[in-house]
Amino acid sequence: MKNELLLQALKGETVDRPPVWMMRQAGRYLPDFMKLREKYDFFTRCQTPELATEITLMPIDQIGVDAAIIFSDILVVLQAMNIAVEMREGVGPFLPQPIIDQAALDQVILPDVNERLGYVFEAVKMTKSELNERVPLIGFAGAPWTLLCYAVQGQGSKNFDRAKAFCFQEPAMAKELLQKITTTTIAYLREKIKAGADVIQIFDSWGGLLSPTDYQEFSWPYIQQIIDALSGTVPLIVFGKGCWFALQEMSKSGASALGIDWTCTARNARYLSGGQITLQGNFDPSRLLSPIPEIKTQVKQMIHAFGKDRYIVNLGHGILPNIPVDHAKAFVDAVKEYQS
Amino acid sequence: MKNELLLQALKGETVDRPPVWMMRQAGRYLPDFMKLREKYDFFTRCQTPELATEITLMPIDQIGVDAAIIFSDILVVLQAMNIAVEMREGVGPFLPQPIIDQAALDQVILPDVNERLGYVFEAVKMTKSELNERVPLIGFAGAPWTLLCYAVQGQGSKNFDRAKAFCFQEPAMAKELLQKITTTTIAYLREKIKAGADVIQIFDSWGGLLSPTDYQEFSWPYIQQIIDALSGTVPLIVFGKGCWFALQEMSKSGASALGIDWTCTARNARYLSGGQITLQGNFDPSRLLSPIPEIKTQVKQMIHAFGKDRYIVNLGHGILPNIPVDHAKAFVDAVKEYQS
Repeated sequence: MKNELLLQALKGETVDRPPVWMMRQAGRYLPDFMKLREKYDFFTRCQTPELATEITLMPIDQIGVDAAIIFSDILVVLQAMNIAVEMREGVGPFLPQPIIDQAALDQVILPDVNERLGYVFEAVKMTKSELNERVPLIGFAGAPWTLLCYAVQGQGSKNFDRAKAFCFQEPAMAKELLQKITTTTIAYLREKIKAGADVIQIFDSWGGLLSPTDYQEFSWPYIQQIIDALSGTVPLIVFGKGCWFALQEMSKSGASALGIDWTCTARNARYLSGGQITLQGNFDPSRLLSPIPEIKTQVKQMIHAFGKDRYIVNLGHGILPNIPVDHAKAFVDAVKEYQS
Repeated sequence: MKNELLLQALKGETVDRPPVWMMRQAGRYLPDFMKLREKYDFFTRCQTPELATEITLMPIDQIGVDAAIIFSDILVVLQAMNIAVEMREGVGPFLPQPIIDQAALDQVILPDVNERLGYVFEAVKMTKSELNERVPLIGFAGAPWTLLCYAVQGQGSKNFDRAKAFCFQEPAMAKELLQKITTTTIAYLREKIKAGADVIQIFDSWGGLLSPTDYQEFSWPYIQQIIDALSGTVPLIVFGKGCWFALQEMSKSGASALGIDWTCTARNARYLSGGQITLQGNFDPSRLLSPIPEIKTQVKQMIHAFGKDRYIVNLGHGILPNIPVDHAKAFVDAVKEYQS
């Protein structure tokens, strides 16, 4: 690998500067992405390895990040399980038949992932080949709880109230669904690694909607299962948005790194995670709307606060569509200019 | 006062059991509220002292909470400042002319609160009279940052991206708006106290969207101004949703109590707030959808975790419209059944 910074940081090795990438870095703030978006709908882009590869490479070539993350969506796993997912303009993901009772749950299958998600593995292989060992490639999956949120709620939500109600009123059914998602995710990630992913990230975007007790019941055990099943393969990053309260447990899970959002200071994150594990984050995506000199100052302060080692520079959530490209580039450049 | 539990808890006195009330307790889960809602639109209910009084008293009579909170809305303060606020079906608050530039900001006035918000003070007086000293009456206001979120974004939002962009790109304008809101809020709360409010709560519903550094720049100083201005009047409760990272600073502010959301355990909340200040919270509103026996068990566990003294039982955010009345009542009953 020509640029091994990410892998070094995940091993806890000393580096000259931390690696940098951005969640949703191959996204709507990039003009070239928007051009492809006009021609192909969302799932066509996911399902066509050539398109997924082209999109994955954009931020490597145009922004200069230190890692690629395969262009895909966490919801493809639900699709593979026979849960229909549409992408509706102005609504986002829409699931016409949410899983709200045993009858619906019985229709959810444990798929042959090669049959149903082969296009993802093809995209990973093609991207690896195109990358030609320039930077590592990250594969990813949603945490089972986050996927349940969509499967039950049927669409995005501020508080995923229907999904939570389902868990609290029908915990046995909820756990059956969570287990099906977990089993599928493990099979899916194993194939993604076989196809060439160098690192895996688990996104628990909605873990922070749960109380710490409910998180231990409905989210964490399923993430831990995934970590255990993938143990000994590639480094794994767990990002739980709003999950500061679980950082201690997460730090003992076998994950190589933990993602941090911007409400948790570097100091709190290091303290809560025990000070030894690699951390990733945590620039507020909205802060990329600040003037460029301020972005650069704040990035340097952030690296200083986290420390250059055992640290991966990233945002605290996905980049927003309205971020100017030169602001995203300034974020990355500030890391490259860092001198300890 | 016949029931002084809330005032005792706010003074840190020893009590037989903690007081209990629920944020948004006079709300859409109550059938009688829904009947009034069919007849009168939102702001008519706020602006008619007889209706506001009737609604405020509903949960006292029907659920048995230990405190009343005047029925109103945080956005009436913006209306008084010449910022139009509509309540649109299916959308919620909608501000047709958001404050996005200096020209709009120049139209924002520092109102004579008695002239523009006299109906709130009338409602407070009428409610105090109807309550006849049964329980204390809480008056409230939104935190300046939370009001700015609506004033700039123009409606509710998952991340209030436009409001944050305004602050980060035009900090001087943002602070001018925050100061105008703060000055108006202080005048408003002084009159509310004069009218009879026994306690004041500040709601910073969106403080947790900011990084700790940005919270110190755009939210906290304005809340501290309000606390300082009201010092020596009535006890003040500050609730910052998602603001666990600021609990230490908040605990030194002169506030009598701090509201806690359900992502912060009792243990973390006590630790972060220094162990001395009264805390209020933090049942997940969605957890009121659990079966009644489970609600009762969890409420007792919660009291045990916070301790019965220096504690006010509440939810971690407003009660949801789909909570069955008997579940809300079970929450309150569980507190009354508590024996240490």
